[in-house]
Amino acid sequence: MSHNGLSPDVLDRWNACGYYELVGMRVTHADAAGSAFTLEVTPGHTQLYGTAHGGVLAGMLDAAMALAILAQIPDNEGCATIEMKVNFTAPGNVGALAGTGEVIAIGRRVAVARAEIRDPADRLVAVAQGTFQRFTQG
Amino acid sequence: MSHNGLSPDVLDRWNACGYYELVGMRVTHADAAGSAFTLEVTPGHTQLYGTAHGGVLAGMLDAAMALAILAQIPDNEGCATIEMKVNFTAPGNVGALAGTGEVIAIGRRVAVARAEIRDPADRLVAVAQGTFQRFTQG
Amino acid sequence: MSHNGLSPDVLDRWNACGYYELVGMRVTHADAAGSAFTLEVTPGHTQLYGTAHGGVLAGMLDAAMALAILAQIPDNEGCATIEMKVNFTAPGNVGALAGTGEVIAIGRRVAVARAEIRDPADRLVAVAQGTFQRFTQG
Amino acid sequence: MSHNGLSPDVLDRWNACGYYELVGMRVTHADAAGSAFTLEVTPGHTQLYGTAHGGVLAGMLDAAMALAILAQIPDNEGCATIEMKVNFTAPGNVGALAGTGEVIAIGRRVAVARAEIRDPADRLVAVAQGTFQRFTQG
Repeated sequence: MSHNGLSPDVLDRWNACGYYELVGMRVTHADAAGSAFTLEVTPGHTQLYGTAHGGVLAGMLDAAMALAILAQIPDNEGCATIEMKVNFTAPGNVGALAGTGEVIAIGRRVAVARAEIRDPADRLVAVAQGTFQRFTQG
Repeated sequence: MSHNGLSPDVLDRWNACGYYELVGMRVTHADAAGSAFTLEVTPGHTQLYGTAHGGVLAGMLDAAMALAILAQIPDNEGCATIEMKVNFTAPGNVGALAGTGEVIAIGRRVAVARAEIRDPADRLVAVAQGTFQRFTQG
Repeated sequence: MSHNGLSPDVLDRWNACGYYELVGMRVTHADAAGSAFTLEVTPGHTQLYGTAHGGVLAGMLDAAMALAILAQIPDNEGCATIEMKVNFTAPGNVGALAGTGEVIAIGRRVAVARAEIRDPADRLVAVAQGTFQRFTQG
Repeated sequence: MSHNGLSPDVLDRWNACGYYELVGMRVTHADAAGSAFTLEVTPGHTQLYGTAHGGVLAGMLDAAMALAILAQIPDNEGCATIEMKVNFTAPGNVGALAGTGEVIAIGRRVAVARAEIRDPADRLVAVAQGTFQRFTQG
């Protein structure tokens, strides 16, 4: 178990993967209490109405839930998103967003988590509940 | 009403917006029967396990539902995603993905749509059901 | 495999279980193409606004998805709902409702299905997408 | 606004409606902090596997979210469930279940809430996130 949370090395590997770099999303912390992410919304993230596309927010929420789960399962396990549901509660305007994830229920095979994103004014931008499959890595 | 579907000009404006360009997603068609999208999964879209991050797929599904709705409402209206739910049914491997969206129910204020993504072997990669708010544009 | 669908005997056992009898819900058919249910909305199903409570509709959708899955897996397997998402698109007025379920994707452990409910005027009342865990029975 | 919560008279009217009586569900409290429900699972609530049918749990979660919202909006308003998503995390065995609901975000037209159900051992049985439409009553 990762009682002290995911190591800086593990976080670095996630931050270096393609999607995280593409959207500029970073995990800053993940332990048994949950995960923390940052993302700076730029014009490159926007749809036609000028605010962050749902995909950017959904991706951050998916990741925040996944890393919160990874921090509670053995190092040789991974998790895959079975499904997730997101409510978009306020526009993601250009600027810094903070994401957090936490585990709701963890079973031997399936885990349930939730995550949320807040803007600099601490307004709730999006909130998710999702289901993940645990698997053993090679 | 957009009986013949969204015009090439409207599709071009969507394809030129920040997020579509960032992830390389393109809408190719949208009319009363639904919308069609393409996206080429590259290493830049992947998470640590080497397949497309959920955010890429969720963004494409969100867009496919939204454009299907836009093709059924007056030109002076837009729609915002209230919420969406996505099941991930197969890995999004590097290669071409095809997305389609369709409207399930349309009310005066709220519309419900679904969308799916298939890989080159026609395998279902992800499927979504979402709710959108109609609004009048300036 | 239940190529010809669930037997009348199996359907009878479902129709005789507590919840089905409590709400007056009946499965009339379930085979590889999907499941079919009926439910007569009565004042006993209503909330304060006089239409069917969401629980009645959600229960029918859950069952329609589950029976569609059971018709595609071996007889010695069951399935449990991991999660489901329901959109309520029109009021469930007092009268007869028809529910149908179909499998979207079926894996070794997890299956995804959808279901819908229509009223006597064929209006869509509710639509669901859900995820189920397959398990082997004693 | 219902600063002190919904009055006993309002709670009584909900508890007297058809669906609440049919399933034996009761709202015991609802104020700005959230709502509280009780339901005793009996054999009449079960599916073929002997535990509470998803419809019973979904109905309780739907109601817990709705009443939490009603406690935060003016008395002349109602709310209708646009959609909800439920994770079932443990079997609802025969016995007493406790449900709670809380508002996550409230807008002029749409509100987002969450709810959960716990068994006598305080184990999480089900957890939901849903979206509701506010409307003015006659």
